[in-house]
Amino acid sequence: MTNEKIPYKIYLAENELPKQWYNVRADMKNKPAPLISPATGEPLKQEELEPVFCTELVKQELNDTDAYIDIPEDIVNFYKMYRPSPLVRAYCLEEKLGTPAKIYYKFEGNNTSGSHKLNSAIAQAYYAKQQGLKGVTTETGAGQWGTALSMACSYFDLDCRVYMVKVSYEQKPFRREVMRTYGARVTPSPSDTTQIGQKILAEHPGTTGSLGCAISEAVEEAVSTDGYKYVLGSVLSQVLLHQTVIGLETKAALDKYDIKPDMIIGCAGGGSNLGGLISPFVGEKLRGENDYQIIAVEPASCPSFTRGKFAYDFCDTGHVCPLAKMYTLGSEFIPSANHAGGLRYHGMSTILSQLYHDGLIEARAVEQTSVFEAAQEFARVEGILPAPESSHAIKVAIDEAKKCIETGEEKTIVFGLTGTGYFDMVAYQKFNDGEMDDYIPTDEELEASFAKLPEIGNK
Amino acid sequence: MTNEKIPYKIYLAENELPKQWYNVRADMKNKPAPLISPATGEPLKQEELEPVFCTELVKQELNDTDAYIDIPEDIVNFYKMYRPSPLVRAYCLEEKLGTPAKIYYKFEGNNTSGSHKLNSAIAQAYYAKQQGLKGVTTETGAGQWGTALSMACSYFDLDCRVYMVKVSYEQKPFRREVMRTYGARVTPSPSDTTQIGQKILAEHPGTTGSLGCAISEAVEEAVSTDGYKYVLGSVLSQVLLHQTVIGLETKAALDKYDIKPDMIIGCAGGGSNLGGLISPFVGEKLRGENDYQIIAVEPASCPSFTRGKFAYDFCDTGHVCPLAKMYTLGSEFIPSANHAGGLRYHGMSTILSQLYHDGLIEARAVEQTSVFEAAQEFARVEGILPAPESSHAIKVAIDEAKKCIETGEEKTIVFGLTGTGYFDMVAYQKFNDGEMDDYIPTDEELEASFAKLPEIGNK
Repeated sequence: MTNEKIPYKIYLAENELPKQWYNVRADMKNKPAPLISPATGEPLKQEELEPVFCTELVKQELNDTDAYIDIPEDIVNFYKMYRPSPLVRAYCLEEKLGTPAKIYYKFEGNNTSGSHKLNSAIAQAYYAKQQGLKGVTTETGAGQWGTALSMACSYFDLDCRVYMVKVSYEQKPFRREVMRTYGARVTPSPSDTTQIGQKILAEHPGTTGSLGCAISEAVEEAVSTDGYKYVLGSVLSQVLLHQTVIGLETKAALDKYDIKPDMIIGCAGGGSNLGGLISPFVGEKLRGENDYQIIAVEPASCPSFTRGKFAYDFCDTGHVCPLAKMYTLGSEFIPSANHAGGLRYHGMSTILSQLYHDGLIEARAVEQTSVFEAAQEFARVEGILPAPESSHAIKVAIDEAKKCIETGEEKTIVFGLTGTGYFDMVAYQKFNDGEMDDYIPTDEELEASFAKLPEIGNK
Repeated sequence: MTNEKIPYKIYLAENELPKQWYNVRADMKNKPAPLISPATGEPLKQEELEPVFCTELVKQELNDTDAYIDIPEDIVNFYKMYRPSPLVRAYCLEEKLGTPAKIYYKFEGNNTSGSHKLNSAIAQAYYAKQQGLKGVTTETGAGQWGTALSMACSYFDLDCRVYMVKVSYEQKPFRREVMRTYGARVTPSPSDTTQIGQKILAEHPGTTGSLGCAISEAVEEAVSTDGYKYVLGSVLSQVLLHQTVIGLETKAALDKYDIKPDMIIGCAGGGSNLGGLISPFVGEKLRGENDYQIIAVEPASCPSFTRGKFAYDFCDTGHVCPLAKMYTLGSEFIPSANHAGGLRYHGMSTILSQLYHDGLIEARAVEQTSVFEAAQEFARVEGILPAPESSHAIKVAIDEAKKCIETGEEKTIVFGLTGTGYFDMVAYQKFNDGEMDDYIPTDEELEASFAKLPEIGNK
């Protein structure tokens, strides 16, 4: 099919959709370091994780040997409602830039959750249902994950209880109402219905909450309520596994037209979307079959890869969760007000951290205003209004396409467009009004944060 | 392909996309009555419409003889960025309902404008650009049309000036910001920058505006500014023509799998989406080739078809626009607060009005609360959160599918899902909180409104 004109959008047929997720850990010589217990410092075992997480999901979390894991049929069927997502050839952007580069993006925004989060939400809801649970608890910040999980739970008639950071609950009522429309119970966090919530409210009356606090409340409700488990939307290896549907579809669509990318770009917060996109390509690198340049893009305001330490750290600010070995800015690092809410996490997936440490992927930090400039340029020619998070990848894709103008190289660039920005218009308004600022943490700030890294795991 | 399993989503290939719009008027024996001048009562001619509208668009408006009109290549290419839209088999909804009916919906929401409006916006922007104009003016209520036009103008580097009803400008800042991101100038209406705006502000200080006023301001700016014309997003026959891309794709997708629908359902406000969806099917009815049951669904609060008069009436509340013969509730009829903003128009497309009058389509009025119940039921199983407007069609599709349970008929139902409800969460919130009300105008109210129908055209 090499000489056929590449369409604007490559859609796989239903029978070409992935039937297995790809577990890149199986092909990694240097495995990601295990999660360890904050109490003992020892690697966590299946039975220690089961009080919090669904049994099957714990198995996936700990499985670093099976390269392929079957996608259950119910999940495949749900995927068919909004997948395959299109692999889009950005003809209009190429023309606007005047670049000889060929640009493709995998667009995950064509579903009501507005992002790739649904790929893992439906999997986690499925395993919860299979285990006979009544429901699940989770936390959400800006609301993408909560929305995705609400949709997934509604499909399986599973109760969904979301702790939403209070400031978002109040300032982002739209996402909250989407969750309610899907039948979720949405509680502003901190709440007075959990012990940890009561404690925090007593200590900090009037607090607008934090993700760390919301995680603690969701975990507390899960472990103390019969028939409930806790689920998480990023960072964990199980989530990254489910997200490989993105990369597998991308690879299949490219193969269909004999396209070999030179470069794959994605934004990185907790790392699940990037990990999902690049896994099949990294697998080829690990097995020595092919080479690709892979770039993780993070905000300069929260530069885990480019300025973080590779060390064991707490996954949450409340220090109730396990420790993970990852690139981290320190679990108490508070990024400045940055509108790419999904990229404000202090740490990074253990899988991506190991890959970065081993030189299989590189990273780049970009400033917010330049990200919104790229978002606007993209929106105006490609039609899609991108999420601020996704726009980090757009920024670097455009930078690389511009380099090709100078060098004359016809590079093939693939990037992940994880979602739409319809619920991020407050950030766009700031940009439109010229009131957006960039903030980069100082070395002193980071050093102070690193000084608080736990001893456990790092001795 | 008859025995092949129908996929969840039928996508046409790029080379199967329509290359011509279909002009149903050519096949109508009883042509829609012409627009007439409020001054003379005579049918408006090309040269009388050109001061306001683009030349080529006036030609399309007046053309009731050519059945097919070529879609210019630039528009075809733009369509490729977000079209074909999927024709979705609602397997999950069918299963949930337990109906033997086969339900399909044509989903127009997968683009940043969130609706079908973009299909005509890009066409109108194209012809404005071809004519060498600097820009266009328009009005917008809730903002879908303004958003679509902003996107289209940005693509052709055309200035876009939108008068947005002040109450929406203030209460729906998100849509406003999407338009600004695409480079549009958005002015709250009434403004102090037009004569009509100044007049209205002087007479009604503190008014929050109306669509009628916004139209008047947009027309005034267009006719008084060199290089600008006025464009409109619904009601007009040219708009309905552009929207036939929806019906043509639907027909092609169904034909591909040898599916013949029994019933086609769409919501009707000004009528452009419904007209676009049904045109190719109505054409077959008119030519005696096939028969289909076609149902227009309107809100019980604004029942133009089911309780209106078929008469000449003003298209706008300000009475600056031409008169059209249509089903109307009277140009001064103010529908009660109804969240399906796009269905609050007092009149109806002249084409659809004539088809309804001739018995080729039928109509049904539904109440708001039942519409949101259908929207929620649909969202929970099909994943997509629908716009309130689109949900009117969902309501009747579900009603019809339920009838099939009783009769055992395996009817094939196709409905138009015109857009997503992401910017309608205030309405969903009212529904979630049980605070939504239904209002149906009384006969006395309607009679009072009909008494004000103009004499002109109706003698």
